[in-house]
Amino acid sequence: MDIKKKALDIHEKNKGKIYIKSKIEVNDRESLSLAYTPGVAEPCRHIQKDKNNIYKYTAKGNMVAVITDGSAVLGLGDIGADAALPVMEGKSILFKEFADVDSFPICIDSKDIDTVVNTVKLISSSFGGINLEDISAPRCFEIEKRLKEELDIPVFHDDQHGTAVVVLAGLINSVRLLDKSLEDLKVVINGAGAAGVAIGKLLIKIGIKDIVICDSKGAIYKGRENLNWIKEEMVAITNPKNEKGSLKDVIKNRDVFIGVSAPNVLTGEMIETMNENPVVFALANPIPEIMPDKAKKHGAKIIATGRSDFDNQINNVLAFPGIFRGVLDARAKEITDDMKIAAANAIAYVIDDKELKEDYIIPDPFDKRVTKAVSEAVKEVALKNSK
Amino acid sequence: MDIKKKALDIHEKNKGKIYIKSKIEVNDRESLSLAYTPGVAEPCRHIQKDKNNIYKYTAKGNMVAVITDGSAVLGLGDIGADAALPVMEGKSILFKEFADVDSFPICIDSKDIDTVVNTVKLISSSFGGINLEDISAPRCFEIEKRLKEELDIPVFHDDQHGTAVVVLAGLINSVRLLDKSLEDLKVVINGAGAAGVAIGKLLIKIGIKDIVICDSKGAIYKGRENLNWIKEEMVAITNPKNEKGSLKDVIKNRDVFIGVSAPNVLTGEMIETMNENPVVFALANPIPEIMPDKAKKHGAKIIATGRSDFDNQINNVLAFPGIFRGVLDARAKEITDDMKIAAANAIAYVIDDKELKEDYIIPDPFDKRVTKAVSEAVKEVALKNSK
Repeated sequence: MDIKKKALDIHEKNKGKIYIKSKIEVNDRESLSLAYTPGVAEPCRHIQKDKNNIYKYTAKGNMVAVITDGSAVLGLGDIGADAALPVMEGKSILFKEFADVDSFPICIDSKDIDTVVNTVKLISSSFGGINLEDISAPRCFEIEKRLKEELDIPVFHDDQHGTAVVVLAGLINSVRLLDKSLEDLKVVINGAGAAGVAIGKLLIKIGIKDIVICDSKGAIYKGRENLNWIKEEMVAITNPKNEKGSLKDVIKNRDVFIGVSAPNVLTGEMIETMNENPVVFALANPIPEIMPDKAKKHGAKIIATGRSDFDNQINNVLAFPGIFRGVLDARAKEITDDMKIAAANAIAYVIDDKELKEDYIIPDPFDKRVTKAVSEAVKEVALKNSK
Repeated sequence: MDIKKKALDIHEKNKGKIYIKSKIEVNDRESLSLAYTPGVAEPCRHIQKDKNNIYKYTAKGNMVAVITDGSAVLGLGDIGADAALPVMEGKSILFKEFADVDSFPICIDSKDIDTVVNTVKLISSSFGGINLEDISAPRCFEIEKRLKEELDIPVFHDDQHGTAVVVLAGLINSVRLLDKSLEDLKVVINGAGAAGVAIGKLLIKIGIKDIVICDSKGAIYKGRENLNWIKEEMVAITNPKNEKGSLKDVIKNRDVFIGVSAPNVLTGEMIETMNENPVVFALANPIPEIMPDKAKKHGAKIIATGRSDFDNQINNVLAFPGIFRGVLDARAKEITDDMKIAAANAIAYVIDDKELKEDYIIPDPFDKRVTKAVSEAVKEVALKNSK
């Protein structure tokens, strides 16, 4: 039976993937009077007096909303709110299974930025965190930015930051292996959507100075016409030599290629023009920018993809469950760059020096040490910040 | 330990009352690839092709949103979205414990009718039904009406219809005992809020012709000044003799008093002016319109309250879990008056002729037969309607 049929069967048999459970049995008058009227009035009164009590008396503190508008779902594109629900339920169970974070899928039936932002704000009482998912760029940047400003709970667009954190973990381990310096890496990022932008920003944050971002028209440089606002923003902080041209032009003499773009856009010949020991993260899914065997043949030293059937899978599940576990445990109000960097280091150093090798720079998604390490690292940063 | 302290303790110890569970274990690459990418794309595609498939491949079909704006929570009034959450979580666990309906609490942080309606619509993908809760009158009527018109899933304001259904069940059993005819009952309803209005409408629907509704200023009659729109609407279909005056005036020669109003507003003397074998439903909580022993002393034949420590408790939990179980099982698009009447009859006839007596006209909330009977009755009507 092929995977499509199997996936349909498992969804149909279970009628979706999440259900609700009660923490309290209600089976007699006393339990009813405590969990519901009249007893329930008491926690209500305490929350009315002090909003912080909502964390004490409700499920909010462990409950994350998985929010989409259905505009950029997997590789399927703008399929709408209803059709996005299976993915959001999937995300919810990953939160639960990997980090014991409760989460609930909310698909907002609007593509209007104001509407999405306002809707999330209006329903945020129940939630201790917001995970944005599969929202198209550049809308996702504004939605996240506004929600971070206007809400006092952590907001995290996983397609951006989850990917960026795991990519950074992969780079940290690449330089451990190759004995290069992280800051001195010359990087080209192919793809200027949610993931490409977030990867660029995080790599700048850790000190990498020479990054060129390409979109489908080639390098993004100062003075290029018709750049949208986020690309203008990225131009201002990347491409220090203002390099122009296609990917083929700007990949020359670079140490790292990070593809978050489209199938087969990286050729073996391009890899051959890179610096010694090139690192190739070809993350387009399901068909990467270049297949690993071909990349290797043309000299790639370290190769990662988004696929589970190759070594070094860049999988967000290594990051988001532990990150939310950490901020919820610390009751942090936001997820900062420092937390993301701590998470990346935690993921990277799950692999010790002896284990580390070219085909094992990224831990297995089911390695139980990962979420634990990530959550502890994030929590530590959060608690330090709150002092 | 008193109930307030106990209620706080149980909420704090459990950190609220609901949590999320996964229906599918994700513990290896295969299960991950079926529940999440790439397998999950397949149910998405099927839903994109045919919206009805969302019931086949997601949890929607058994998932009810418990929605409030926090404007009329229990007896606490307008306490806001955050402080309302414990009640909504309570409602969620009642759905689960009584009828295995999954439900999730959403507290909308706005008192604006348009905003509440639009927010519910925008997030309705995840839900197979909407239970409105603790929304102030007359706003609740418009919110419910618009949502019923604009959504294709059942919408039910429990404070209205749950109460009305159980009251009707109580009246059905009262006339069984007293050998009166339901249609000929002369009824006074004291209280023109959510419950009073819904009770009035449902009693009219089953054929009761002589109903007078009072608010705090007395009988609502044609020509009374400053009636809001819902009271104007009720005037047009009640009070056939256009009776004026206070409760004391219009309760004379009536068979039934239904109070959904305020403590101690019904006196023994008023009961003495009612018809033979008066029926008194004094549902104000926690202090009823008259205490049962006093009502009895002044001639009340059948007495019901909203309290669990007296006989004949009018408790919505007898109705809403089974009603939603029934409509979800039938995948009905709305909850009709016929379904409510079927539910009321189902509740009433859980008590057979031999068991029925004055202090047992309403089944116990924990009588397992109730939800089963209600859900089957509602489902039957729903399936008949859909033919």
